[in-house]
Amino acid sequence: MEKIGFIGLGIMGAPMAGHLIDGGHEVFLFSRSGPPADLIDRGGTARASAKEVAASADVIITMVPDTPDVEKVLFGANGVAEGLSAGKVVVDMSSISPVATKAFAARIKELGCDYLDAPVSGGDVGAKAATLSIMVGGPKVAFERVHAVFALMGKNITHVGESGDGQTTKVANQIIVALTIEAVAEGLLFASKAGADPSKVRDALMGGLATSRILEIHGERMIKRTFDPGFRIALHQKDLDLALQNAKTLGVSLPNTATCQALFNACTAQGGAAWDHSGMVKALEQLAHHQVAEG
Amino acid sequence: MEKIGFIGLGIMGAPMAGHLIDGGHEVFLFSRSGPPADLIDRGGTARASAKEVAASADVIITMVPDTPDVEKVLFGANGVAEGLSAGKVVVDMSSISPVATKAFAARIKELGCDYLDAPVSGGDVGAKAATLSIMVGGPKVAFERVHAVFALMGKNITHVGESGDGQTTKVANQIIVALTIEAVAEGLLFASKAGADPSKVRDALMGGLATSRILEIHGERMIKRTFDPGFRIALHQKDLDLALQNAKTLGVSLPNTATCQALFNACTAQGGAAWDHSGMVKALEQLAHHQVAEG
Repeated sequence: MEKIGFIGLGIMGAPMAGHLIDGGHEVFLFSRSGPPADLIDRGGTARASAKEVAASADVIITMVPDTPDVEKVLFGANGVAEGLSAGKVVVDMSSISPVATKAFAARIKELGCDYLDAPVSGGDVGAKAATLSIMVGGPKVAFERVHAVFALMGKNITHVGESGDGQTTKVANQIIVALTIEAVAEGLLFASKAGADPSKVRDALMGGLATSRILEIHGERMIKRTFDPGFRIALHQKDLDLALQNAKTLGVSLPNTATCQALFNACTAQGGAAWDHSGMVKALEQLAHHQVAEG
Repeated sequence: MEKIGFIGLGIMGAPMAGHLIDGGHEVFLFSRSGPPADLIDRGGTARASAKEVAASADVIITMVPDTPDVEKVLFGANGVAEGLSAGKVVVDMSSISPVATKAFAARIKELGCDYLDAPVSGGDVGAKAATLSIMVGGPKVAFERVHAVFALMGKNITHVGESGDGQTTKVANQIIVALTIEAVAEGLLFASKAGADPSKVRDALMGGLATSRILEIHGERMIKRTFDPGFRIALHQKDLDLALQNAKTLGVSLPNTATCQALFNACTAQGGAAWDHSGMVKALEQLAHHQVAEG
């Protein structure tokens, strides 16, 4: 059994840390607002800072909202770096910038430790059910060391490549998902505005080249007008921010990612930050004064 | 057995008409350059005009390149309309404007005949193998009358709705396919430029929410640099023209369809009119001075 640190115990981190405790590991916990009582009841140990967690554990996991939060918890006052000693592994499971991740990994390596970036997909449902997909970048030896820990939290666990590649994969996933939602939205809205039944059009397209998980799931949500998340627009906006900021740094042009972010922005302007991301269709519908279908 | 007319005997029409002849129907043929000799050898009957075809046959099929071609062959001098008598069925299997199709259907109906719009997907490979997908709009009774004829040419035969709905479905398909190709292109190009192996990224994404037929097939073409068609960019440009022109008429905003057409235009500017449509990635690559992968 490992000594594991878990920093960040929000809607994702708390159930993930719970699986590690239930799996028999010794888990040291820190979050800004203190660890949830039930994690302590189940056998977790509270620590007063990220630094103390890093000093106590051999594998230190971070699960916080965004790039600046990871930087602060790793390298800020009383942060992980201050508590590390050589031979430990830092695993960032947050979804953050791939470019920043490479710099963080280099700084952790200088301390004689390994760094894995291991963002997840599957949301709070996947976190609770321990069915997350986990996309990992970093040294293969570190990946293998931590694999059994990942396996307590997720199902599809892929070692993609070197440091940053896990975050890059997550961003690529969020680009493709957002743009495929938009593709389905344009197709179904066109069909509906032209007078066809979008449900029959979707049926006719399933099985052909237009087939996608998104046409199946999100296409149905657009037709049935069920926009409860699922995955919130506000979260997908954060991910497309990462895509667009990193695209600027890397020098790559993502025209439809930019348009999708604009459409998400139009949704939040209508109060849709908490809509499911399939609600992107509503921004196109407003431009057309027409809905894909009546709910 | 039916008396069938077939007008337009190009790369798609010739094999389709051949299946009807081989299926035992009496088939009357017309094309501007005369019917291929092998269709006559197999039992087809040449006619001197679309008008004569319409006079001889009960079900008259048109398979020509674009909206103005359909209009000319139906309503021009010596066209189908001049040869029709009440009770016949006109079946346009070309891929043309949904809005124009509704007007054509109304004019044919005035002559006491039925009109079906029945565009196909599957390309010349599907035409030869009789595995086309056929998306049909128009009266259900006419659809049922012609179903056995369709079944000689295709496999997935769907009655979507009223006149125009077949063409609308085809346009929606081409919108979703183009935009999903673009989605995969942005995702894989971002990943590659960020230093990840696009092949491993694609593997990690398959099975999750980003899964699509396009990620599977066209994503692989982008990685392996195999841009032989497949489906030619020039043909997809024609389809997106239909989408954008009809979107203007209908009053619907298709921002990413417009961008995809712009990217296709950039490909043709590089001599890529005959590339497979997955070659759209090359336009994004040129903007980034970077390829998804080395071929």
